[in-house]
Amino acid sequence: MSELRRDPISGRWVIVDIDHPNKPEDFEHEPHAWKAGICPFCYGNESLTPPEISAIRDPCTLPNTPGWQVRVVPNKFPALQIEGELDKRGLGIYDMSNGIGAHEVLIETPYHHKDLPDLLPQEVESIIWMICKRALDLINDKRFKYILVFKNYGPSAGASLEHSHTQIIALPMVPKNVMEEIKGAQNYFEYRERCIFCDIIRQELQEQERIVLENKHFLAFCPYVSRFPFEVWIVPKKHNIYFCHMPQEEIPSLASILKDILTKIRNIFKSPAYNFLIHTSPVDGDGTEGYHWHIELMPKLTRVAGFEWGTGFYIVSTPPELAAQYLRQQK
Amino acid sequence: MSELRRDPISGRWVIVDIDHPNKPEDFEHEPHAWKAGICPFCYGNESLTPPEISAIRDPCTLPNTPGWQVRVVPNKFPALQIEGELDKRGLGIYDMSNGIGAHEVLIETPYHHKDLPDLLPQEVESIIWMICKRALDLINDKRFKYILVFKNYGPSAGASLEHSHTQIIALPMVPKNVMEEIKGAQNYFEYRERCIFCDIIRQELQEQERIVLENKHFLAFCPYVSRFPFEVWIVPKKHNIYFCHMPQEEIPSLASILKDILTKIRNIFKSPAYNFLIHTSPVDGDGTEGYHWHIELMPKLTRVAGFEWGTGFYIVSTPPELAAQYLRQQK
Repeated sequence: MSELRRDPISGRWVIVDIDHPNKPEDFEHEPHAWKAGICPFCYGNESLTPPEISAIRDPCTLPNTPGWQVRVVPNKFPALQIEGELDKRGLGIYDMSNGIGAHEVLIETPYHHKDLPDLLPQEVESIIWMICKRALDLINDKRFKYILVFKNYGPSAGASLEHSHTQIIALPMVPKNVMEEIKGAQNYFEYRERCIFCDIIRQELQEQERIVLENKHFLAFCPYVSRFPFEVWIVPKKHNIYFCHMPQEEIPSLASILKDILTKIRNIFKSPAYNFLIHTSPVDGDGTEGYHWHIELMPKLTRVAGFEWGTGFYIVSTPPELAAQYLRQQK
Repeated sequence: MSELRRDPISGRWVIVDIDHPNKPEDFEHEPHAWKAGICPFCYGNESLTPPEISAIRDPCTLPNTPGWQVRVVPNKFPALQIEGELDKRGLGIYDMSNGIGAHEVLIETPYHHKDLPDLLPQEVESIIWMICKRALDLINDKRFKYILVFKNYGPSAGASLEHSHTQIIALPMVPKNVMEEIKGAQNYFEYRERCIFCDIIRQELQEQERIVLENKHFLAFCPYVSRFPFEVWIVPKKHNIYFCHMPQEEIPSLASILKDILTKIRNIFKSPAYNFLIHTSPVDGDGTEGYHWHIELMPKLTRVAGFEWGTGFYIVSTPPELAAQYLRQQK
């Protein structure tokens, strides 16, 4: 089992792998190459993953066999384990607990070389629908405080498998930066009785300078305070604190804007690595009426200097106004 | 001039390059190769940098000529500019100001291929002495609130030049994460009337499990809540909020422990990229008596997933206890 440890100074939690620790020789020095061998996420290799949790599949087919379009399985090397108790305890000045949580992998397509831009709109809709379904299931477990959904695509974005997938982690605490974002939004809400994200949407629509795409239910723009060049936020126009409470009719809008933004980024940068992350309210949404769920998408274009980790201080070489212009012009 | 922009939700500031923005084609896709051509930091090429601010050099030599051991020059492509006024202003919901600050480069050695482990102890001492000297000079400028000292070594740590150098940035605001660390330490101090770092030193010395090296004035250990594998903190044993107020007699101790830790890391990982960062109190040290300056050193061994940026949530594959053991065993 892994350990959760809490920094007594900053309050930050980290997961420490106690059972299968990396030795010095496990870290790569050479440019990344995908591991040779059979891909456990490909069609026909279903037996190579742990048994599936959920899938969208031909009703005539059995679980863990071909016939699926989207498949959710437990992560074979989970950061957190579903069985056991948290058992929070102190260690002198330090706080720790057992690494309890869930770590699932959503395999987005049976095809090894396809990414979201290659899928049909309804296939992207199925992925979003499945993410919501898994989140709605995980929040029933009272041990979990936050459902983290993210995608690492490409080696430099931290993906360890080439086959396109999204990860879902259920955490027994709310991550620090998420909490800060929520508090910031809540302070604004208490002061003005308005959602700061709704106000940002209004200002962006008025200025038009940083908008990349807009459709019926969503707005995609390069945020005024981008941390990375070509960072894009996708925000629902209608105030909503939980992504998994997204109304059914919004899903096609989200699938369409996500696919289109990723297509633009792929075309400008010739398939760069990227990450995206769903920012949402904690499971217990008390005191988060001023929050507003959204997706933050970051193409991995720069090599990030370590001091940015330490300071939360970023230098952005492409102003978001210019990035939005390039993205708008690109198909 | 660059722009400083403040995130209205999280309070994070970023520097946006308005004058020389990167276009899509400016981002690399291929594995990093150092730019061919003449290195502006090498001996004999002094005319290729902006005129030097300070140097340790043979007293018979002129500025901007050979004869130096350590040289500080303005960054040719500064993130912040020294001339002008901050001129803080609003832009609807957003806050911004001009990019005022200082951005200096400390060239650590005249030799292109030497890094700190290759230098003599007294040469490393000169570097530390010079960092303190520059910081003490910059804090006289009342516009500056924080002096940020960091090193990026190797392409994957964000270095753009191969020749070993440290960067010094004077900021017109205190970076967000620094402020949080200070607040965390201050909360502890107000509650217990003790410095949390002093308490950590005491606990680490008692447990011995995570200690890598100890000398008269400094302790080097892998923090209990490491964010990265083989992360090392170097902490002065005596409570001190400002690194640049380090007593003269501590400098040789720091030079020795820093050189030894970097040598161990180089030997284990065959010269990996790394970052280090000096964490210190803001220029105005009011309400920071519970803080304690230190160095955080991170070898760049893993490809970091973007979600860690967004959440402040880390997964560490080598427990610090094990990392410390490897580092202790290594020469």
